[in-house]
Amino acid sequence: MSTVPLSSTERTRLGRSRERGRTDRAELYRVLDDGRICHLGVVVGGAPRVIPTGYGRIGDTLYLHGSTGARSLMSGPSGEVCVTVTHLDGIVVARSAFHHSVNYRSAMVFGVPRPVTDPGEKLAALEAITERLAPGSWSRARLPNRKELAATAVLALSLEEASVKVRQGPPVDDEEDHALDVWAGVVPVRTAFGAPVPDPLLRPGIPAPASLTSW
Amino acid sequence: MSTVPLSSTERTRLGRSRERGRTDRAELYRVLDDGRICHLGVVVGGAPRVIPTGYGRIGDTLYLHGSTGARSLMSGPSGEVCVTVTHLDGIVVARSAFHHSVNYRSAMVFGVPRPVTDPGEKLAALEAITERLAPGSWSRARLPNRKELAATAVLALSLEEASVKVRQGPPVDDEEDHALDVWAGVVPVRTAFGAPVPDPLLRPGIPAPASLTSW
Repeated sequence: MSTVPLSSTERTRLGRSRERGRTDRAELYRVLDDGRICHLGVVVGGAPRVIPTGYGRIGDTLYLHGSTGARSLMSGPSGEVCVTVTHLDGIVVARSAFHHSVNYRSAMVFGVPRPVTDPGEKLAALEAITERLAPGSWSRARLPNRKELAATAVLALSLEEASVKVRQGPPVDDEEDHALDVWAGVVPVRTAFGAPVPDPLLRPGIPAPASLTSW
Repeated sequence: MSTVPLSSTERTRLGRSRERGRTDRAELYRVLDDGRICHLGVVVGGAPRVIPTGYGRIGDTLYLHGSTGARSLMSGPSGEVCVTVTHLDGIVVARSAFHHSVNYRSAMVFGVPRPVTDPGEKLAALEAITERLAPGSWSRARLPNRKELAATAVLALSLEEASVKVRQGPPVDDEEDHALDVWAGVVPVRTAFGAPVPDPLLRPGIPAPASLTSW
């Protein structure tokens, strides 16, 4: 895995809130490996389109899940896409409306994705995508057959050009507002997983795997 | 509030999984009013950029929060943007890797946003955006002064062209896989709010408001 710092290109240099930028590649991996879905931005007919989709990471490659023929996988003449993964970590409640904010971690990846055609790479990519969604599933489930593999489009996107933004901590109010009789602080936000609900068609006597109940 | 069904334009007609489409405008409102952040897609130099940001809704207008001068508010020659709000509701664990999926609700809104310049509309928009983030905050907080209002850019986007996609329910495995000795079902996912953490600088004796503890 690369230890090269995150790239500094025109679009990964942060236009505002520079202090929120992170240049540590490990931080990029953490943000990506903590998410379940990404938002894939493409250009269609000159206009942007933002599609939620599944993804997985192997080293410095992000793999995106798609269906063959899905319009989402074609992005304008340049073929460039932007993949954003965002974690909302807290609602930042300030004494002033102006300083309300959110605590978050967000990664943006830019580039021209490559369709994955090699069956071995495709299988590995699908494993990464499936495991990101449901840890432990790949070793339990029936693996894709040839027809299913052909029906699944996978894109590979290099993590070469990427940026990470993070905001954590309490509100930053104006000094003179500290005297106000108004509560200020952070309401933590997290993604919570409930108890697994069995498929009504599940055969009796098959317990939910520990990897899905320990979330 | 409009009761007109959701539009059917080239890009809101669903390219795949048509059965997941919703044409009820009330469903669009529900998805938007249930979220805290959206992903705003813009085109910069022919390439897409996807930025997480705050938003609010008043009737059939979506208001997006930005900072004056933020690059995120300029979108190519056409000025078109795409705003997507996604709720991950469950991890769909199937008996086959191929049929793994997610339960979700997702709204996409397309259009050319209008910068909000009228001070009255801007205040109302900021109230909607703040209340979406932290219910009850607008009536407690110090409201924006003239300088703060000027420093805050707000975009208005009509909800005229929008689509909603929803997937709920158990996995849909192939008939012949039902006999497999593999657990299948759904792991519910939700956004959880923790106990409010007071700002270290908070004056003593100010309790957290009920609207923030009752989440």
